[in-house]
Amino acid sequence: MSAERLIYLPLGGAGEIGMNCYVYGYGREDEERLIVVDLGVAFPDMDGSPGVDLIFPDIAWLEARRDRIEAVFITHAHEDHVGATGHLWSRLRVPVHARKFTAAVARRKMDEQGQDPEEVRIASPWPAQIEAGPFKVGFAPISHSIPESSALVIDCPAGRLVHTGDFKRDATPLVGEPFDPALWAEIARPGVKALICDSTNVFTDTEGRSEAVVGPAIQELVVAAPGMVVATTFASNLARVRTLAEAGQAAGRSVVLLGRAMRRMVTEAVEAGVLVDFPKTMPPEDAAKIPRENLMLIVTGSQGERRAASAQLARGKYLGLEMKEGDLFLFSSKTIPGNERGVLNIINAFSEMGVDVVDDSSGRYHVSGHANRPDLKAMHEITAPQFLIPMHGEHRHLREHVKLGTETGIAGVLAPNGTMVDLSGNAPRVAGYVDTGRTYLDGSVQIGALDGIVRERIRLALNGHLVITLIIDEEDEPLGEPWCEVKGLPEKGRSKAPLSEVIEEELGQFLGRADDDLLVDDDKLTEALRRVARNTANSEIGRKPEVTVVISRLS
Amino acid sequence: MSAERLIYLPLGGAGEIGMNCYVYGYGREDEERLIVVDLGVAFPDMDGSPGVDLIFPDIAWLEARRDRIEAVFITHAHEDHVGATGHLWSRLRVPVHARKFTAAVARRKMDEQGQDPEEVRIASPWPAQIEAGPFKVGFAPISHSIPESSALVIDCPAGRLVHTGDFKRDATPLVGEPFDPALWAEIARPGVKALICDSTNVFTDTEGRSEAVVGPAIQELVVAAPGMVVATTFASNLARVRTLAEAGQAAGRSVVLLGRAMRRMVTEAVEAGVLVDFPKTMPPEDAAKIPRENLMLIVTGSQGERRAASAQLARGKYLGLEMKEGDLFLFSSKTIPGNERGVLNIINAFSEMGVDVVDDSSGRYHVSGHANRPDLKAMHEITAPQFLIPMHGEHRHLREHVKLGTETGIAGVLAPNGTMVDLSGNAPRVAGYVDTGRTYLDGSVQIGALDGIVRERIRLALNGHLVITLIIDEEDEPLGEPWCEVKGLPEKGRSKAPLSEVIEEELGQFLGRADDDLLVDDDKLTEALRRVARNTANSEIGRKPEVTVVISRLS
Repeated sequence: MSAERLIYLPLGGAGEIGMNCYVYGYGREDEERLIVVDLGVAFPDMDGSPGVDLIFPDIAWLEARRDRIEAVFITHAHEDHVGATGHLWSRLRVPVHARKFTAAVARRKMDEQGQDPEEVRIASPWPAQIEAGPFKVGFAPISHSIPESSALVIDCPAGRLVHTGDFKRDATPLVGEPFDPALWAEIARPGVKALICDSTNVFTDTEGRSEAVVGPAIQELVVAAPGMVVATTFASNLARVRTLAEAGQAAGRSVVLLGRAMRRMVTEAVEAGVLVDFPKTMPPEDAAKIPRENLMLIVTGSQGERRAASAQLARGKYLGLEMKEGDLFLFSSKTIPGNERGVLNIINAFSEMGVDVVDDSSGRYHVSGHANRPDLKAMHEITAPQFLIPMHGEHRHLREHVKLGTETGIAGVLAPNGTMVDLSGNAPRVAGYVDTGRTYLDGSVQIGALDGIVRERIRLALNGHLVITLIIDEEDEPLGEPWCEVKGLPEKGRSKAPLSEVIEEELGQFLGRADDDLLVDDDKLTEALRRVARNTANSEIGRKPEVTVVISRLS
Repeated sequence: MSAERLIYLPLGGAGEIGMNCYVYGYGREDEERLIVVDLGVAFPDMDGSPGVDLIFPDIAWLEARRDRIEAVFITHAHEDHVGATGHLWSRLRVPVHARKFTAAVARRKMDEQGQDPEEVRIASPWPAQIEAGPFKVGFAPISHSIPESSALVIDCPAGRLVHTGDFKRDATPLVGEPFDPALWAEIARPGVKALICDSTNVFTDTEGRSEAVVGPAIQELVVAAPGMVVATTFASNLARVRTLAEAGQAAGRSVVLLGRAMRRMVTEAVEAGVLVDFPKTMPPEDAAKIPRENLMLIVTGSQGERRAASAQLARGKYLGLEMKEGDLFLFSSKTIPGNERGVLNIINAFSEMGVDVVDDSSGRYHVSGHANRPDLKAMHEITAPQFLIPMHGEHRHLREHVKLGTETGIAGVLAPNGTMVDLSGNAPRVAGYVDTGRTYLDGSVQIGALDGIVRERIRLALNGHLVITLIIDEEDEPLGEPWCEVKGLPEKGRSKAPLSEVIEEELGQFLGRADDDLLVDDDKLTEALRRVARNTANSEIGRKPEVTVVISRLS
């Protein structure tokens, strides 16, 4: 008879910063009752996922065990933790628990996808606990950059787990509850079996700074600016949005929120009562009447996103507003790796307009929302866990965080996505590997990252596309000439004649020589035409395109 | 009668770091005799130029004035200065001048493109001068990160210009000549009309450090490493390649060069006599026999390039060599903006193998080859030019460099690509704007960046491709059903039936209702079929794909 066991299984977030989704289970092997922490998204890029709208963790493993899932818990309202709730919920159909503001965001996401918002239930903070099968789960307030961020205290018969969610050690976070070492000491008193811990900033050696330090620096900058001031940060970084708005207000400027996500996030937070005394804002349509030196815009697009407000302003007018020489643009944000080129393109566009751009390179106008290396160490020490499981990081972060644990004598487990860890014994043990991956939201359809669909699009982008059509008559003879259409290829090559004509000519000659066996076999004929077309293209333009052959038979 | 004038016209490099190409002219307006400085390349990326092989400056303006060009001068052998020589020479057909090693590289590039290498002539360094119409041009040695880097001293009846090329202030550059303030003071003595100056590091406030400082740090790292050490840098950063090889040798390791560019660059430099006493290297095929703790590999791929040696090692075996747990991988390089994600993917792959990765974040293992802000200021002071023209930078760098000049009282000119500046008078004057842009090498064909070909490929990648074929018989009636092929789109959507079948069904119904006027008009019919297909796709998969319609008429 197998004993009961406690398992941990990351499906997303332990291999990337984003797309968080973690599973805990307790019970007999393969009968464990399960809870899910976070249903987040990651964002696509042109390199690896062109045309994709959003990226979700692959939850096939969970879906197949739906009857064993008790509930989903959402730690906070950032997209990489809550963003997939509406899209994935119908595949799980279990209650979702979150604190009030997070629940408001999750409910909107449910509503947008046609799901019942009431499936999201509002949780009270620690010391309240929610029973979920063998688990009792508490939302323990922890400082981050959005209100109501919570670590989860997860109790089960095998002991207590602390799942930090995203956090920093900040005594004055401006929004949300301050980091409270006494609370964590209290929570740790019964003993912590495992600390499952944010790894984002494990490579940053200096102690983290409080959100409160950037306000005065930003205010100084805004006061000194002669023209309009425009500042960008993540809309969901409500701490910073507040800091920016207060700096604008203190400088006597009218504050305008630009960009749908920015306006919506602030509205939701105000409505949820977690953003009290937020400075009065002015609608964008009224701003054009105000002298520009009295304006402070807070805009979306800190990562250079093409459709966000900052990119629109870099291209010209946006909602009647326009940047001019002498204005100031502030990136109160860190550029996420992969987004550098997009951000720099915006900076150069502003430079052409004569706008002064200030970024975070001085360290004065941005602080991270995540715990740095010394803060992680402090968290290890306060909670004194038996095991450390780094999460919320790329592989390099997880590996480094395990090393950090080793320095302080805590047994660490390197558990990337799909690694099932058995936490029951005195040492953590890898109990198996689960197939994991990524699900793409492609238009309105969920597809697997490895289905080949996006790979096919990438090949079209790299190689271009030739379409060849051929009609075969009732006597199995070509009717007329083959036809060639080109997409994304140079019009002319080596022989200075149109590429499509050169290929048609070669295909025509090939068909003239082709024997009857070939002409009756669609597969062989398709392959032969493809080969001729690719070789001709290669000799003409030095490139072998993707080829689609359409043979229409009149018989 | 118009007087003679001196003009400056950047065609590439003043709007990006890369693709350098500058024009100087002297003579009557529109009759100026011209010289060209550098013919460099830029590198494509998936975001903006998928499938493109190389990017060149658009030299149409020069080509149209070929009879007025006296010569091309190449400052040094980095790809962004010499890389386009072979590809563009046939459009200019004028002598190319470069110092010995640079000439060797340029000759290879001519040869690779079927041009006569002898068109590249070997120049002696300053005080030698080459006569080119009204100009006398001298190659004045300046420190950078590759041997024989030279600034150009350009004399003409309107005065002396100093075109710095890429440079840093380094008294001990390890390869190439040290920076010599006395030489520059001497060159400046007759007075400098304009300093055309590298802007790469204008945002770096600290004084530049010498190449000599990284050697001891790297050596320490290599000596302490328990396993194999693999280090990467640009192959063309011969200073660093030498530093790395010497560190390996000093640690008693056999040094192996991996990657075609790395082996070729070192061979060419040794043959040109500019890399004397380079440590003995071992061929990769012999390395597998050596204990890994006695090996030091120096490899290509510092920017995460998919086909280079570092990416190959991150994926598994390369030329019989393989990374293992306990090995060390050193990025002795800076990641160029836009390449971060590729580099991090490699770091994470190594992390999964248990390889320790060291990058330049500590500043110990890499120094820049370009002058920092204080060094630029020093160069301004030594040469004391009448005008400052920042080059070799994005717009933000050029703008900042003009500001820096203003601080020291030098009139700066912000002249991005295509800006023709008249330097004849007592103040620089913008004399006009020339259409400039980028030429893509796409396979074997040169195409314009704005020709729409690459934009079409990007659309295919973002939207996928539907191909619709329809046969119309002699009576102008559809023969059979329309046929639909999909590329890069989900197989099934909302109705759970294959997307192609759903679209064929809709198109069939549409054609059943279509009147005769439509069926005889190819353009209208194409447009109508496209619209039906796009709308059907949108309702099925939430996306409007690119559509190609092929109508074949039997009449």
